[in-house]
Amino acid sequence: MRVADLIRKKRDGGPLGRDEIAALIGGVSDGSVPDYQTSALLMAIVLRGMTADETAWLTEAMIASGTRLDLSDLSQPAADKHSTGGVGDKTSLVLAPLVAACGVLVPMMSGRGLGHTGGTLDKLDAIPGFRTDLTIPELRSALARVGCAIVSQSDELVPADRRLYALRDVTATVESVPLIAASIMSKKIAEGVGALVLDVKCGAGAFMKTTAEARMLAATLVAIGERHGVRTEAVITAMDAPLGRAIGNALEVAEAVDVLKGEGPADVEALTVALATRMLVLAGSATGEADASARVREALASGAGLERFQAMVETQGGDPRIVDEPGRLPSAPVREAVPAPRAGFVARLDAEGLGLAAMALGAGRDRVDGRVDPGVGLRVLAGVGSRVEAGTPVVEIHGRDSRQIDTVRPLVERAIDVRAVPPDPQPLILDRVTVPAVFQP
Amino acid sequence: MRVADLIRKKRDGGPLGRDEIAALIGGVSDGSVPDYQTSALLMAIVLRGMTADETAWLTEAMIASGTRLDLSDLSQPAADKHSTGGVGDKTSLVLAPLVAACGVLVPMMSGRGLGHTGGTLDKLDAIPGFRTDLTIPELRSALARVGCAIVSQSDELVPADRRLYALRDVTATVESVPLIAASIMSKKIAEGVGALVLDVKCGAGAFMKTTAEARMLAATLVAIGERHGVRTEAVITAMDAPLGRAIGNALEVAEAVDVLKGEGPADVEALTVALATRMLVLAGSATGEADASARVREALASGAGLERFQAMVETQGGDPRIVDEPGRLPSAPVREAVPAPRAGFVARLDAEGLGLAAMALGAGRDRVDGRVDPGVGLRVLAGVGSRVEAGTPVVEIHGRDSRQIDTVRPLVERAIDVRAVPPDPQPLILDRVTVPAVFQP
Repeated sequence: MRVADLIRKKRDGGPLGRDEIAALIGGVSDGSVPDYQTSALLMAIVLRGMTADETAWLTEAMIASGTRLDLSDLSQPAADKHSTGGVGDKTSLVLAPLVAACGVLVPMMSGRGLGHTGGTLDKLDAIPGFRTDLTIPELRSALARVGCAIVSQSDELVPADRRLYALRDVTATVESVPLIAASIMSKKIAEGVGALVLDVKCGAGAFMKTTAEARMLAATLVAIGERHGVRTEAVITAMDAPLGRAIGNALEVAEAVDVLKGEGPADVEALTVALATRMLVLAGSATGEADASARVREALASGAGLERFQAMVETQGGDPRIVDEPGRLPSAPVREAVPAPRAGFVARLDAEGLGLAAMALGAGRDRVDGRVDPGVGLRVLAGVGSRVEAGTPVVEIHGRDSRQIDTVRPLVERAIDVRAVPPDPQPLILDRVTVPAVFQP
Repeated sequence: MRVADLIRKKRDGGPLGRDEIAALIGGVSDGSVPDYQTSALLMAIVLRGMTADETAWLTEAMIASGTRLDLSDLSQPAADKHSTGGVGDKTSLVLAPLVAACGVLVPMMSGRGLGHTGGTLDKLDAIPGFRTDLTIPELRSALARVGCAIVSQSDELVPADRRLYALRDVTATVESVPLIAASIMSKKIAEGVGALVLDVKCGAGAFMKTTAEARMLAATLVAIGERHGVRTEAVITAMDAPLGRAIGNALEVAEAVDVLKGEGPADVEALTVALATRMLVLAGSATGEADASARVREALASGAGLERFQAMVETQGGDPRIVDEPGRLPSAPVREAVPAPRAGFVARLDAEGLGLAAMALGAGRDRVDGRVDPGVGLRVLAGVGSRVEAGTPVVEIHGRDSRQIDTVRPLVERAIDVRAVPPDPQPLILDRVTVPAVFQP
């Protein structure tokens, strides 16, 4: 079997077989398939798609490139959540300790941000001393002690994904449902969890712009999870406006702590509770939706979730005092408000526009190897639906200096839309995808 | 301008601009665009195509990667021919000296064979001592002395093509009209000729299976040539059966000599005369078709063409005695005939099947770095249309040993079709393409 023949097969639209995919990914992992062949294959996949079977086999082959964790010795169900990436989405920081407080392990392996969306690891890096690069034994010990940990992808899990992702980023082969699905699911399945909730973002600020696209990706992800014995479910959530009020790493950590204290924005709390509830149900740790929801709310109200968060920070080497003293988090020296241009109602806060503005400040990166400034970001002072006068501050920019703020201000101004009539209220959770479905890429 | 953005543009079907293509090919040439990006771009081009403009700009950028010869100091018109590859096609060996004998320079840069089709350089390598790796000064001197030379592609001309072709071969990105067209035309235009005749093969043994495909490729090639100031024309010729009776390197050299002596197969002579005639017309060296044709036939009948061939062999270091003593060419020790399975007429001799059989004997190569045996090959003893009895020898296999012949025999048997009724005669020249045409890949 020559690699060029397999590339040709995919190029001509033919489905690849299980053994063929296994051989290709094996070659990618051990280096016997050179990058130039891999990137031609990736482009053929982007343009020709993959069937549900092929996507599942790709996921399987990627998992087989490394080890799959076995957490059964910890004698507790384990669950995880994955989001396809949004602006201001700090739910992971709230969710992991909250679910752990309800008796379900959360061995969350997460990523860094790219483009206008932030990454969970970048947010945690804003906590002084916090380490995300735990070894597998350190992760196990953190799970045994705290019940949750949020760490970077282990080198031992799915090494093929790192090779593929590095190539995809520089060869314009990122945007492909089967490649995205296999990348996400191989990593989550290799974590050894029995239950997985997927938050598929949809809207102007998300990779998936329409609910139809989001449903297709969600169905693909759910089907793969179920084929690998992981109870998987997806919620499709709106990502037109940022989630919560904070965008930027330290600002989002502070907001996550607020949510755990019961003092956070309603949308972040509602989404986190909804995701946590489904994690408990899928993990088999609650008798049903009502039971799960009640337990999650109790863990929030009692402060048990906050306690776990603090324990997680401490266990991972971070300064636990940030919980009570948020001033210990990094911050930016210059703050300037962008006012409403006229009286009316905030009709729109464009998530992508604000995400790009935050990235420009240094809160995110536009290249995989870019550096991030933990202190900068944006705070929404008047959310969508708020009544404002001309001059009412809508968004506050936290920057390094006035020049930087002047540069970013037009981006923020363009992202704000104030109208005479209040906008129709939009639901946050748009749909739920539970059944494996056949998809056509 | 990031390379990944340009790849994305082509991936999404958008046309690339002149400057963008120039930047990409410049980067391929100087190594600043890594192979993995180039191969992703190539796959996107294969699947998304290129417009006529893009293809012309690609050709232009490839020419600009090296030098373009200037032959004006030789004070004679210069012309060349390119064939898209057939089985048993030794016309170049006859054509170059014949056209030179008519007063038109032929600085022919040619290639090696791959797959079931042979390469002109492999054929010439069968002549003891023949050198195809002339330097540019050596090529000029050979042209000044003999009027023609057949040499390998110079490193100074179109270096980008070598980089691209090496990648295309291993990434299943060979089969693309714009990539094929730019590769062919950049090399021919860089030779510095003012006229070019293209022999676009069409049929079971050719890359283009239908006349519609062949016409599209021909129109693309002609349009590019004309845009670059080269008088260009294409003939579309049948490649269902092998051309002539010999397949294999030394066997084909001997047949080419036979043609120059006026003793060769009618189809090779007819095609060569037709191509030579058009070269004279396009080069402006004849008053018209009739004049050109008469001069070509005269050069053949007078032996002037044969004389030039012998001079070319000598000038390029080869043994000129092979013209009068073909026994000095390499040969294979074992010969065995494949007989007709029944009485009737030879209805079909499958060019691809016989080409693959010759390749299996060692006359061709299935990998770019494969070695070639100059002596082996096939001789057609009863061509298409011949009346045969059961047992009449149809094809003679020339091999290294009986075991090799036994291995190849079933391939040859499958390529022979004998039927009760004689086949309808088929024309060799199917069409001529002279006008630049807009094409949609």
